[in-house]
Amino acid sequence: MTGVGEDWRQVAAAVGPLDAAAMQAARERQGQLTKPAGSLGRLEELAVRLAGIQGRAVPRLAQRAIVVMAADHGVAGEGVSAYPQAVTAQMVANFLAGGAAISVLARQLGARLIVVDVGVAGNVPGAPQENARPTATRSVLAENTTFRRARVAPGTANLARGPAMSRVQAEAAIAVGLAVVADEAAGGLDAVVLGDMGIANTTAGAALVAALTGQPAAAVVGRGTGVDDATWRRKVAVVERALAVNHPAPGDPLGTLAALGGLEHAGLVGVVLGAAARQCVVVVDGLAAAAVALVAARLCPAARDYLVAGHASVEPGQRAALAALDLQPLLDLGLRLGEGTGGALALPLLDAAVRLHAEMATFQAAGVSEREPP
Amino acid sequence: MTGVGEDWRQVAAAVGPLDAAAMQAARERQGQLTKPAGSLGRLEELAVRLAGIQGRAVPRLAQRAIVVMAADHGVAGEGVSAYPQAVTAQMVANFLAGGAAISVLARQLGARLIVVDVGVAGNVPGAPQENARPTATRSVLAENTTFRRARVAPGTANLARGPAMSRVQAEAAIAVGLAVVADEAAGGLDAVVLGDMGIANTTAGAALVAALTGQPAAAVVGRGTGVDDATWRRKVAVVERALAVNHPAPGDPLGTLAALGGLEHAGLVGVVLGAAARQCVVVVDGLAAAAVALVAARLCPAARDYLVAGHASVEPGQRAALAALDLQPLLDLGLRLGEGTGGALALPLLDAAVRLHAEMATFQAAGVSEREPP
Repeated sequence: MTGVGEDWRQVAAAVGPLDAAAMQAARERQGQLTKPAGSLGRLEELAVRLAGIQGRAVPRLAQRAIVVMAADHGVAGEGVSAYPQAVTAQMVANFLAGGAAISVLARQLGARLIVVDVGVAGNVPGAPQENARPTATRSVLAENTTFRRARVAPGTANLARGPAMSRVQAEAAIAVGLAVVADEAAGGLDAVVLGDMGIANTTAGAALVAALTGQPAAAVVGRGTGVDDATWRRKVAVVERALAVNHPAPGDPLGTLAALGGLEHAGLVGVVLGAAARQCVVVVDGLAAAAVALVAARLCPAARDYLVAGHASVEPGQRAALAALDLQPLLDLGLRLGEGTGGALALPLLDAAVRLHAEMATFQAAGVSEREPP
Repeated sequence: MTGVGEDWRQVAAAVGPLDAAAMQAARERQGQLTKPAGSLGRLEELAVRLAGIQGRAVPRLAQRAIVVMAADHGVAGEGVSAYPQAVTAQMVANFLAGGAAISVLARQLGARLIVVDVGVAGNVPGAPQENARPTATRSVLAENTTFRRARVAPGTANLARGPAMSRVQAEAAIAVGLAVVADEAAGGLDAVVLGDMGIANTTAGAALVAALTGQPAAAVVGRGTGVDDATWRRKVAVVERALAVNHPAPGDPLGTLAALGGLEHAGLVGVVLGAAARQCVVVVDGLAAAAVALVAARLCPAARDYLVAGHASVEPGQRAALAALDLQPLLDLGLRLGEGTGGALALPLLDAAVRLHAEMATFQAAGVSEREPP
């Protein structure tokens, strides 16, 4: 499962620019629909960008997958989270049983939910021992939910004391993400939402954003699941120590990912690269996904144009990462849950953009008068 | 059709406060779901408010209707729009045929679309001569679309030269809205979205907001469907003249509505009052709907708590009205189309709030550990 298949450098090299002709055709179509020009605001921009991503004047969004990568973090031992580490595995079990927030949203939105154990530390209660699709094991998994067992390691090392992962581990996790996208694309894939689960992963995410944007730790460290002032100060100190101990090089995104990231971050980097190479839009969620997007865009600058920011998180590191990527979030609802929830919530807006673009009548067809000449 | 049935004063008197016990039960439920407390941000607030509106700890949102009221405006003769007046009737025909933006969104969101001719000036091409439901006249109407013919008058008088409507006309249009809600509620109704169509109705909407908030015309007049600088200045002058000619009294919302509003505004006031009296949430769209919400809340202060602001429009008058109502919009996508589009786009967020509240597992049921004690 891990490490076989595509090489991420080849996949990254296959990511091309957006299709300018499809975007121009989409813009012209927008101008003929029965509405004042520009009156659908960002939905018009979205339709045009999706046309460029897919290379089709009229894009589609029928097949979508939410990929939740789960892993544990050695830095949890520093006391940076309000929750015990065992919650990572417990929440994976909750995803599989259909009781988590992202499970509910996947059902609402008609999206496939792919839960990947890329580095959980302990036993996942009730999880299948092998990869499992809902058709095979309906008794264990909720509807629409697929489980992939692809542990690269049982969690990372403590990033405050040295590299969280080796480069080999980081690349193995990236390969997991590539394999997930390859399998999902085989069944049809138009959009992918990045989701994450990992106790203490806002510390790793903030460290990645600090290293890649040059922002100070205090500007990108947030409250995570809701830590108090003392724990927040400890998180800031941990990120500062991680940067000092690992001294990540600005021109080495892979080394930075390995030193400061989690296995779920690395796995999701593979998802971004694989999706972009297949002309599939990638919807970014909160801090973890935004940090991933930043790493992926440093490894492969062309991948940036395949990203849509689902929402603005409460986490300051997420906003810093989106700003560095020049991505404007679609929603701003005060979310700070992760799991892909804020990305999933943006899917209906992408749906609306695509359906309005495809289904609205033109002025001519509807017999509606256009603007009066000035 | 018009003027019969409920009296708006009796309906307004039947609007009660939100159900505090249901809201408290909903808050307690939110605290038990498998997520850090507060991490779903505004979706948690929405679930609690919907519980209070419906008087149920676990609210539902299965049955929803988008009510688009269409009417013409005498003030169109002042040259305040980029489009000819005939577009009102042409767009009603487009709604009925399923080609308008709101038609596409209604299909996407599984909402019923109720198109009401409450005061269009000319013939609506291809419209049924009587009220029509899709089952009766599938050949004419798009799926999910109902047409109601309830013209109180063939458009309003020019508000820049005197009252747009008489009080009797305004009350007749309110009664149309009450009748629409009564009929829709008979088939089940959990949420209603306010939609509007009427060439020149951003001038009337801005005049209503100016009169009811005390803001100067230049602060609430926007570009509508996209007018140029000269037309914008003309709109401002028209609104100033309308306020000077009609001198609406702050304590007389009905008189203000009659003097400055459109028949679609008055009809939608009836929709708000009828929906609030039936414990049904009302989703506010752009300038027209926000002006309506302001009038309704002045006529019936208790109705305010049944309102949810779908989005922040580009129109400055819409933002002024929402601020006066202390409503925070859910979306901010640069929309300025009307028709109910920005309200409809918020429905998936209400859906998500309700489904997460109803379907997420509790910590106890899922075997997930809660926060570690500090």
